[in-house]
Amino acid sequence: MADRWQNTMEHAVSAARRAGQVVCEALQDDRKVMTKSSSVDLVTQTDQKVEQLIIQSVKEKFPTHRFIGEESVAAGEVCVLTDDPTWIIDPIDGTTNFVHTFPFVAVSIAFSVNKQVEFGVVYSCLEDKMFTARRGRGAFCNGKPLQVSGQEDIKQSVIATEFGSSRDPEAVDKIFTSLKNILCIPVHGVRGAGTAAINMCLVASGCVEAYYEIGMHIWDVAAGSLIVSEAGGVLMDVEGGAVDLMSRRIVAANNGTIAERIVKEIDAFSPPRDDDPPPQK
Amino acid sequence: MADRWQNTMEHAVSAARRAGQVVCEALQDDRKVMTKSSSVDLVTQTDQKVEQLIIQSVKEKFPTHRFIGEESVAAGEVCVLTDDPTWIIDPIDGTTNFVHTFPFVAVSIAFSVNKQVEFGVVYSCLEDKMFTARRGRGAFCNGKPLQVSGQEDIKQSVIATEFGSSRDPEAVDKIFTSLKNILCIPVHGVRGAGTAAINMCLVASGCVEAYYEIGMHIWDVAAGSLIVSEAGGVLMDVEGGAVDLMSRRIVAANNGTIAERIVKEIDAFSPPRDDDPPPQK
Repeated sequence: MADRWQNTMEHAVSAARRAGQVVCEALQDDRKVMTKSSSVDLVTQTDQKVEQLIIQSVKEKFPTHRFIGEESVAAGEVCVLTDDPTWIIDPIDGTTNFVHTFPFVAVSIAFSVNKQVEFGVVYSCLEDKMFTARRGRGAFCNGKPLQVSGQEDIKQSVIATEFGSSRDPEAVDKIFTSLKNILCIPVHGVRGAGTAAINMCLVASGCVEAYYEIGMHIWDVAAGSLIVSEAGGVLMDVEGGAVDLMSRRIVAANNGTIAERIVKEIDAFSPPRDDDPPPQK
Repeated sequence: MADRWQNTMEHAVSAARRAGQVVCEALQDDRKVMTKSSSVDLVTQTDQKVEQLIIQSVKEKFPTHRFIGEESVAAGEVCVLTDDPTWIIDPIDGTTNFVHTFPFVAVSIAFSVNKQVEFGVVYSCLEDKMFTARRGRGAFCNGKPLQVSGQEDIKQSVIATEFGSSRDPEAVDKIFTSLKNILCIPVHGVRGAGTAAINMCLVASGCVEAYYEIGMHIWDVAAGSLIVSEAGGVLMDVEGGAVDLMSRRIVAANNGTIAERIVKEIDAFSPPRDDDPPPQK
């Protein structure tokens, strides 16, 4: 059992690297000719192309495995995590960054068995940083071990979060209330890379003490969640207790002290779950 | 007159690169042994060391030039811009990032004559990106010309800003009001690199459409302001009209349409000016 998923993980790392190359090439080649109206098309095309690239390569090698992919779900596939070996894929995490060539864009691939993430791969392609974690065996960036920050004082901490894509007034109000509460604890600073996957890798790397968000999706955080916990960090729901990757709510922190302090300040709400049945047409 | 300041600028570029190397070495060597209580000492020591390194090298070559430096002002020197040739220096822009090894840390050097910035140099040392601009001659990153985004639609724009270091409740309220107004225009996204200098270079590079802030200092934005305008962008006060680099208020945008749209949403206030006389002791 020791090396049960080693081959599978190696396949994921090479798929993520190839996918990242396609993303970088799209940025270099296509963006030159991109107009205002075509930028959304570019990102959609690249997203779909990269997701299919990953899924095809996996299907050839592991024909029985299942998939949860951002683009497949957008196209109407159900988003349900079973006990079967399942690849959870975000072909481009940080699509707004991608459109604007803001320097954080990631390919995120997690692999789950019995509803437990066995390995996670996040490739920050513009930085050329390959983050990997295998359950029980630590987290790495380009082969170097990662370790969360040792900070226990929230006032010495930097916290990462995102405003998300919802502009629903009630959600925005709650997001701003939480953010102001946390800023005025006070913390050392608030940052946001514009991608959940990279925010979680920043936690794992010790660059920020914690990341929290309400509204992201399972494909944004499945790989990052293992990278954080294998780097010594903790995961929590925004109201405390165990995290549920389908709930679209997460706190990922360097330790329980920081996580619980943040939970106290969050004005929580519950967006529709990722595994809710799709709306009837 | 054509090459009047060419030598001076070359000196600034090499001084910024050397300074950036010292900053990167401090991050690699000293952070390993850094404890919670010593992190502030590390940043102060490195800040002072780097500022002195730059000032000494300039004094040897240009003994009549004046200086405005973050650390010198913190040590009690007056902050007044005269018509004399003056170096405006921020040895480490992004000190919170520096302490946390968040990947945006910059050395910022501007050179002003007759109260006009003649050249600006921002070295993003962890990214190894050297941004330069000379008045009337364009802006560059590692020698490649920079051009602001052509976007005129605020709803397709990404805006950069910072929460700053003040936790004064009235200022925080206004900062949050402005930010919520802008987010809900709606814009495509809000980002912040954690350094004013790099935020302005992101505007110049076309990665974000605009950056605005109230509370930063002249040494954070003097170099970046020329880099933005030489890349085709515009500078404005947060209430419209001409920017005043001593006022600690700025909007730097890709064009006037975006700048004016942002100005409409900002709940402005006036922090103490950089050139206010120091408080009586």
